[in-house]
Amino acid sequence: MMLGRAMDYQELDDLFNELWPIPRSITGPGITQSLKILQRHIPFEIKAVASGTKVFDWVVPPEWQLNSATLYTADGEKILSTEDSNIHILNFSEPYSATISYEELEPHLYTNKTFPETVPYVTSYYQRRWGFCLSEAQKARLDKTKKYRVEIDTKIYPGNLRYGDLTLKGKSEKTVLLTSYLCHPSLANNELSGPLALVALYKELSKQKNRYYTYRFLVVPETIGSITFLANTEKSELDKICAGIVLTCLGGPAKKVTFKHSRRHWVGEPSEIDELVESLCMHDSECFEQRPFEPTSGSDERQFCSPTINLPVIQAARTPYGQYDEYHSSLDNKSFMRISAVLDSISKLCMFIRVFELNRANLLPMLAGGEPMLGKRGLYPTINSAQTKRMSSDKIVDGREQLNILLNVISLIDGKRTVKEIVEFLEISYDDILSTLEPLLEQNLVRV
Amino acid sequence: MMLGRAMDYQELDDLFNELWPIPRSITGPGITQSLKILQRHIPFEIKAVASGTKVFDWVVPPEWQLNSATLYTADGEKILSTEDSNIHILNFSEPYSATISYEELEPHLYTNKTFPETVPYVTSYYQRRWGFCLSEAQKARLDKTKKYRVEIDTKIYPGNLRYGDLTLKGKSEKTVLLTSYLCHPSLANNELSGPLALVALYKELSKQKNRYYTYRFLVVPETIGSITFLANTEKSELDKICAGIVLTCLGGPAKKVTFKHSRRHWVGEPSEIDELVESLCMHDSECFEQRPFEPTSGSDERQFCSPTINLPVIQAARTPYGQYDEYHSSLDNKSFMRISAVLDSISKLCMFIRVFELNRANLLPMLAGGEPMLGKRGLYPTINSAQTKRMSSDKIVDGREQLNILLNVISLIDGKRTVKEIVEFLEISYDDILSTLEPLLEQNLVRV
Amino acid sequence: MMLGRAMDYQELDDLFNELWPIPRSITGPGITQSLKILQRHIPFEIKAVASGTKVFDWVVPPEWQLNSATLYTADGEKILSTEDSNIHILNFSEPYSATISYEELEPHLYTNKTFPETVPYVTSYYQRRWGFCLSEAQKARLDKTKKYRVEIDTKIYPGNLRYGDLTLKGKSEKTVLLTSYLCHPSLANNELSGPLALVALYKELSKQKNRYYTYRFLVVPETIGSITFLANTEKSELDKICAGIVLTCLGGPAKKVTFKHSRRHWVGEPSEIDELVESLCMHDSECFEQRPFEPTSGSDERQFCSPTINLPVIQAARTPYGQYDEYHSSLDNKSFMRISAVLDSISKLCMFIRVFELNRANLLPMLAGGEPMLGKRGLYPTINSAQTKRMSSDKIVDGREQLNILLNVISLIDGKRTVKEIVEFLEISYDDILSTLEPLLEQNLVRV
Repeated sequence: MMLGRAMDYQELDDLFNELWPIPRSITGPGITQSLKILQRHIPFEIKAVASGTKVFDWVVPPEWQLNSATLYTADGEKILSTEDSNIHILNFSEPYSATISYEELEPHLYTNKTFPETVPYVTSYYQRRWGFCLSEAQKARLDKTKKYRVEIDTKIYPGNLRYGDLTLKGKSEKTVLLTSYLCHPSLANNELSGPLALVALYKELSKQKNRYYTYRFLVVPETIGSITFLANTEKSELDKICAGIVLTCLGGPAKKVTFKHSRRHWVGEPSEIDELVESLCMHDSECFEQRPFEPTSGSDERQFCSPTINLPVIQAARTPYGQYDEYHSSLDNKSFMRISAVLDSISKLCMFIRVFELNRANLLPMLAGGEPMLGKRGLYPTINSAQTKRMSSDKIVDGREQLNILLNVISLIDGKRTVKEIVEFLEISYDDILSTLEPLLEQNLVRV
Repeated sequence: MMLGRAMDYQELDDLFNELWPIPRSITGPGITQSLKILQRHIPFEIKAVASGTKVFDWVVPPEWQLNSATLYTADGEKILSTEDSNIHILNFSEPYSATISYEELEPHLYTNKTFPETVPYVTSYYQRRWGFCLSEAQKARLDKTKKYRVEIDTKIYPGNLRYGDLTLKGKSEKTVLLTSYLCHPSLANNELSGPLALVALYKELSKQKNRYYTYRFLVVPETIGSITFLANTEKSELDKICAGIVLTCLGGPAKKVTFKHSRRHWVGEPSEIDELVESLCMHDSECFEQRPFEPTSGSDERQFCSPTINLPVIQAARTPYGQYDEYHSSLDNKSFMRISAVLDSISKLCMFIRVFELNRANLLPMLAGGEPMLGKRGLYPTINSAQTKRMSSDKIVDGREQLNILLNVISLIDGKRTVKEIVEFLEISYDDILSTLEPLLEQNLVRV
Repeated sequence: MMLGRAMDYQELDDLFNELWPIPRSITGPGITQSLKILQRHIPFEIKAVASGTKVFDWVVPPEWQLNSATLYTADGEKILSTEDSNIHILNFSEPYSATISYEELEPHLYTNKTFPETVPYVTSYYQRRWGFCLSEAQKARLDKTKKYRVEIDTKIYPGNLRYGDLTLKGKSEKTVLLTSYLCHPSLANNELSGPLALVALYKELSKQKNRYYTYRFLVVPETIGSITFLANTEKSELDKICAGIVLTCLGGPAKKVTFKHSRRHWVGEPSEIDELVESLCMHDSECFEQRPFEPTSGSDERQFCSPTINLPVIQAARTPYGQYDEYHSSLDNKSFMRISAVLDSISKLCMFIRVFELNRANLLPMLAGGEPMLGKRGLYPTINSAQTKRMSSDKIVDGREQLNILLNVISLIDGKRTVKEIVEFLEISYDDILSTLEPLLEQNLVRV
């Protein structure tokens, strides 16, 4: 397979390092700057929707700008600051500046009691609050009898929500949506692994000729971004989306790529991509596994799969949210997320997309009538006896089993079944079918 | 639930006592009088079809009038009489008056050897016979050397078969047939429990506003009455019947209401009412159970479900024929059948009919686009961290599970599925779905 | 059943003996002479297609004529000859005449090392070779130091491939193809049993009146004959074929007839004959069994079931190829194949064809309305009590079970189901349903 090699380790690592320190949120200069960096790799349009715009049941929020946020003792000694880590600020915190008692401060301190040594990542987008995030240890060291100076220099102001959107044309208008989100500040697996993989997929697919599907690349702030995209996009454009993948958490320690099915799979409605995921996870279970759809947690697939949108959009992950303790904390960093794991995810996703392309239609036979005469093509014994039936003599070395596979596959290429259907019927792997089909496709004995 | 309270214990008991002593058969003054009593509660039309009329493969029988029937010793001592119980007469017995030997009498005495202490209820509608029904003990006491005087004063004469028929209109012409039979004389569970329940259902349904379905109330003599109704009713009227219930044996000691499926269920043809019965018995197994259709025994559903009629008519019972020894005997009286059990059956049937009404169409969502913003409705945490995902803080007390149910139900209300489908998909009970749906229906977030 | 008796043991035995010694191949005087003998029994047209004609991916071969083939010592002593058995010659051997060393001779000697005492039957139709077939014992006796004289007097010349083809009209144009092959020389089970059975089926079916289906009888040389038939027959004629049976190996020691399903069954496409085979093997498992389709071995069904032809043609056998050591050897003779076994196969196939005819459409009820009044027909108790329900008194001797079967069957005859569907629904045998249906069909209460 040629796929999955368009970006190497170094390129991905450089991109990671460039994106990591930016103080992102769902709106504001952080995400704008991040989108511009990605735009160098995926030349998407950066679309803007004004704060206050109604998007379905939601409203586009104002922009949020973080200048700095620091907690001092009353004596001016720095306790913690966004200079150390930009998850120390409650994301979307309103500005605040005052010297207050511990009692007044305490309700604004966010920790994670379950994992006391980590700084949690906490957001409050739609309810005005101010606050700091810190570890339980940091909090325990605060003297409850003292006063503290809070300096939160943020700005909340009308502006725009921005997202990146690019369409890579194929032969068909039928569109595969490939998307990730961009809104968390310095978090690795549950943020940067997704856009990194998306960039690599774009580079792979844009190189390929004869793409059947059109591919749409989308980078949005999570939840409100996908809702805004859905409200801001013509229905006729959305209707072209025949499949989609939300990329998230693709760099963790797990070995397999794990797909969360779309809502269509959950409710038993047809969906090519879900059906292929089922099959792939059955026939290449060492590389892929699946999870059911659920509307109660997840990422942007919750919006793409809301009941009146109901697109066949799955989610691809490696070590997803809820399966690792480092989730939404200071420990979700490059010690946890490995570039090599992201590379492996990219390779597996490219293989999946290739099979999805090939599986788009029934395989068509190019010979009509009875069986093809395999003898004249050197594929069948020219002498016929009870013994040749058993022993595959006559130069068909070890060929009886191979001949049987070939006869079975030829008997199934009748214009009525796909790659997936033949794989499942014969209970072979996708690798087996690809290696059997390839010569037949090249010799034009079969077409898709 | 408001349903099932339209008649109280006393009203049902009074009606029972009024109907009990009347000497009914499939035709004649007994059934005519009984229909007139019921007509005070269900204001149906009493329809009459003349004796001798061909009804499909059958012929409407003459009327049968019982004046009195008594067996005397030759000395004039009364042995048994319809004055004691009107099941002492072979139902539809021809008149007979003579003094005869025991040998002559014996073939005309009907007992039940399996339950020797009971007087059996025996009929001979289509073959002219005369006879008495009595217990084995009574028979054993007869002196075989003596003569006996038989005085059977009955009258068989051309007249009419009569039945009661009322249509209670709903928004739709689609009709639910609710029917019971009226022909047995003094029998309780296997006779009066059915019309009693039918009266209560009529009172309930006639009070309700916004009935979707039209309900047709039918009281007939068993078998020949339903055949006559089918032959005597326009096909266009029968075609409106989308479901039906034959009410029988609803006052016995069993705890559950048991539904006998229609023939459509037996042969695998679609039938909304059968499918709902399946589901209800699965999800509220403490209250309901089901039996398969069989053409070899039963009540009027045998006619409604004959192969060329094939209506989706089920049968509802509590302790049905064949499951109790008192069946068709003098012991099927108010000691066996309890008014309180009939009341409980009525309540369960009202609940079933309510679910049937609600299940008539897919639930329609009234909000479009992505997920509704539950946060602004106080249904979702406004602060988001790994902890709120697990612990439902932020005032959602014990709400994570409840929130998950709500998110699941909202995700399934897409205009493509019914109450039943959502119950089955989420494996919750009908009570659960009703309590979740009720506020959504009231706030007009959902419609049927 | 009247079927299966149109030919007796003697007639079949005589026909066998007449066909046995003819030196057949896929073309040439041997098969021409054999077809003419069969033509006396099945008056088919003998069709001829010229050598060199392209038939799909194949080419019609020249004719092959065997005059004689003998292996001598250099001294002129006869070692083996087609005078002893015409399988001693490699079938389709080119002519050859020379005195050669053992080293030169050896590559042209065909034996079967697995079964050394048998003379194998070997062919080389499409690759020019010469050779003899002999047992290992015969070969071992040859002196490796001596010379040998080969006299193979055969002729390969342009001519025709011939086959027999007859259409026996029924009410419908829908056609059942009944076919066997004719190309092997003196082999019994895997050659003559097929045409023998085909002749008997023709005699049976041509006697019957009111045949619904048209039957087409076809005798071809194996593989190339069926390919030539398919290429040489109008598509509109092939489209009429709604079912077919390839007859092969019908005289071995096995007890059951075994059906190999068609490709349609393999790939899950509808096929009446395959579905009936499934059902018959389930419900009369003592007489019939089934094998899956496979494209990797078999007879002419491989061509009828090639992916772009895809006819619902099954194969019927008794002890098929691959299941007996005598296959394609001198031991496949009348000691292995018994005329009595062929007769039994014929009888079972006639029963199968009769059921296939009856199963062509839904059974139609001739009475409408509610239940038929069985009482007036003597089929139901005229007195009704709890006891008659249990005990079937009133002259219905042992009739309750029989009455239940009758009530069940009547309830299922609704114009919507076939014999097969009723058998499967009630889990009774085909014999049961036929004995229940026969009186109803005769009295015109039911029609097909």
